[in-house]
Amino acid sequence: MRALGERARAAARVLARAETAAKDAALLAMSAAIERNRAMLLAENRKDLEAGARQGLDAAMLDRLELNDARLASMAEGLRQIAALPDPVGEISDLKYRPSGIQVGRMRVPLGVIGIIYESRPNVTADAAGLCLKSGNACILRGGSEAIHSNRAVAECIQEGLKQAGLPADAVLVVETTDRAAVGELVRMKGHVDVIVPRGGKGLIERISGEATVPVIKHLHGVCHVYIDERADLEKAARVAFNAKCQRYGTCNTMETLLVHHAVAEQILPMLGRMYREQGVELRVCERTRAILGDAKPATEEDWYTEYLAPILSIRIVDDLDQAIDHIAQYGSQHTDSIVTEDITRARRFLREVDSSSVMVNASTRFADGFEYGLGAEIGISTDKIHARGPVGLEGLTSQKFVVLGDGHVRS
Amino acid sequence: MRALGERARAAARVLARAETAAKDAALLAMSAAIERNRAMLLAENRKDLEAGARQGLDAAMLDRLELNDARLASMAEGLRQIAALPDPVGEISDLKYRPSGIQVGRMRVPLGVIGIIYESRPNVTADAAGLCLKSGNACILRGGSEAIHSNRAVAECIQEGLKQAGLPADAVLVVETTDRAAVGELVRMKGHVDVIVPRGGKGLIERISGEATVPVIKHLHGVCHVYIDERADLEKAARVAFNAKCQRYGTCNTMETLLVHHAVAEQILPMLGRMYREQGVELRVCERTRAILGDAKPATEEDWYTEYLAPILSIRIVDDLDQAIDHIAQYGSQHTDSIVTEDITRARRFLREVDSSSVMVNASTRFADGFEYGLGAEIGISTDKIHARGPVGLEGLTSQKFVVLGDGHVRS
Repeated sequence: MRALGERARAAARVLARAETAAKDAALLAMSAAIERNRAMLLAENRKDLEAGARQGLDAAMLDRLELNDARLASMAEGLRQIAALPDPVGEISDLKYRPSGIQVGRMRVPLGVIGIIYESRPNVTADAAGLCLKSGNACILRGGSEAIHSNRAVAECIQEGLKQAGLPADAVLVVETTDRAAVGELVRMKGHVDVIVPRGGKGLIERISGEATVPVIKHLHGVCHVYIDERADLEKAARVAFNAKCQRYGTCNTMETLLVHHAVAEQILPMLGRMYREQGVELRVCERTRAILGDAKPATEEDWYTEYLAPILSIRIVDDLDQAIDHIAQYGSQHTDSIVTEDITRARRFLREVDSSSVMVNASTRFADGFEYGLGAEIGISTDKIHARGPVGLEGLTSQKFVVLGDGHVRS
Repeated sequence: MRALGERARAAARVLARAETAAKDAALLAMSAAIERNRAMLLAENRKDLEAGARQGLDAAMLDRLELNDARLASMAEGLRQIAALPDPVGEISDLKYRPSGIQVGRMRVPLGVIGIIYESRPNVTADAAGLCLKSGNACILRGGSEAIHSNRAVAECIQEGLKQAGLPADAVLVVETTDRAAVGELVRMKGHVDVIVPRGGKGLIERISGEATVPVIKHLHGVCHVYIDERADLEKAARVAFNAKCQRYGTCNTMETLLVHHAVAEQILPMLGRMYREQGVELRVCERTRAILGDAKPATEEDWYTEYLAPILSIRIVDDLDQAIDHIAQYGSQHTDSIVTEDITRARRFLREVDSSSVMVNASTRFADGFEYGLGAEIGISTDKIHARGPVGLEGLTSQKFVVLGDGHVRS
């Protein structure tokens, strides 16, 4: 692993100064290679699928592992989209003259070497390599052992693209070993790796952030809230609260707990309760909510902390905005929370006081996403406090150094 | 320590939404309290100085520990300056409409709880508390045991200021125990502490970043370079190279190694050599430099890695810009490096390719400083890659969350 780290570091220096045109040419060549090698990719993927079926992987896992024509097309399209994004590297901002006569500004620069650790989905190999490359970073990719053939095959297409564009092959390194100890080593290689991005289930992410000494960009889970305020437009409230839960169940920005101001609870909950039940969403509710939706299951303390990732929703009636904010501070995961209100003062308070990576007014939590935010693509979502919060796109894979321009200036 | 962490976390929530006027009032009241309590502060400091003398602290250490009228005045003035800085918290930037109809922007928010670990200088207590407060963060301050009376006395003035402004006393917590284990606990209290800023010698910082599981904003050392290019204006080169070494020896942004393009070495080195020697600077040089400055001491491999913090300078002649950049990549500490050249292409390459927190053209490395950069004040300098690089001011103690504004928008 250390040898791999040194190769990545050397490649990172070349990539940091690579021209935008070369990086884009590589991305387009990778995309073309994936389209050209469709048969090979599907054949290699089949080996993983067969091995997975023999090992008894469950249906959801096999589904995540599978490549097909549509998924390959979207992998290739993803790389073309990254090529079309503006290059963040080298951007100079805030260049200003200081009283001493020097000009001081900031230049956006790559982080260096990024370690990506992920499970099953082979498309991450192409996505992550593309984002790291465009942001001028070398990357070390460590996919799940169950996807090893697929990942190797995708890596071949990536290597072809790098070669065609004259960029170093070591810019994208795929860890070939399926040895688990390799991960433990990767996340502790300070000096060789600048940041680790784990992508996968909560178990993987907890394990990695527990072991890592290299900084980690991650989110553990998404316990997202919608709070329907006393001053909400109830039509908008129903629309947002329904979409936030039902548009997709398994995503981290799906609402898991609905908070409702007591003054509007009797008006809106019966209608919302019906809508959820028609969708087959199980409700787990506080006592006051039970008084309105008689037959719903009582929520336990544990429920308020839970990311269901399933058609289950907990509902709590609160006394006021303060109690809603307190609930989110106590039980939330600092991912995404939304208020529905027409009251600008309450909206402003919610935006300022809720300490989550995305805070929203009158919008579905499902919007918390790199594409929806206009970042182009995301390598992940961060619920950490330092560096990047929320969806992490190309900019989150860079930082800013200071540039100083003088004309022989010295300090007195 | 955990109880302390919980108190700090609760205070952080209040501070995050505190109005600018309240924070500024607290800073001014702290400043006034320091001026009013001068006699008490000097008396408490005297206890530390006497204990230090008894324990045999060296003269430099005792000097750092000492408070006097001038130092107290500058502590008070520092707090007034922080009050005068613009409040970074709540600033919304890049608020743009997306095709879906939602508006997406970023809001600057405090990090939460900051742990500051520092040695001897009691002025850090006031500086750090002021910067954390203005940026909306609670802080836990752990000073050196040798300064415990001084730090407690300064903390009293800080508490007085917080009280007068109606802010929670727990916004600034001073660790009263001198037990070393407390530091080990503080730097591992993920969940209670959001970032650690160590301030002090290399030993302290190495120990802390080795133990910490909480993210650390730090720089280990400053091996800063000036590279005099073939196309340099030699008059500027001499001025910059002299200032970068001799304006102050003990600071992290002082030049430790001078790199000179071979084509101008014979012209400039004899003059520079004279200037340094007149200042009593010891030179340690490469073989080619020795051929020009015959009597200088040969540099060892170790010298190129060394931060002297003293009137010692290593000098190396290089073949070209590439060799200069390679030298800096290998031996430097990613702190501050400067090129002297009139050639814009070489200047642009140096700015882009040298991966240091500050890169400069025709300016003394001594400018790498929060005040000189217009940040107002700095809590430290970071040579890390993620979050903040270079001098860290108020903005470095914040991050940005996403804000989304809609009108009942849902995702389709």
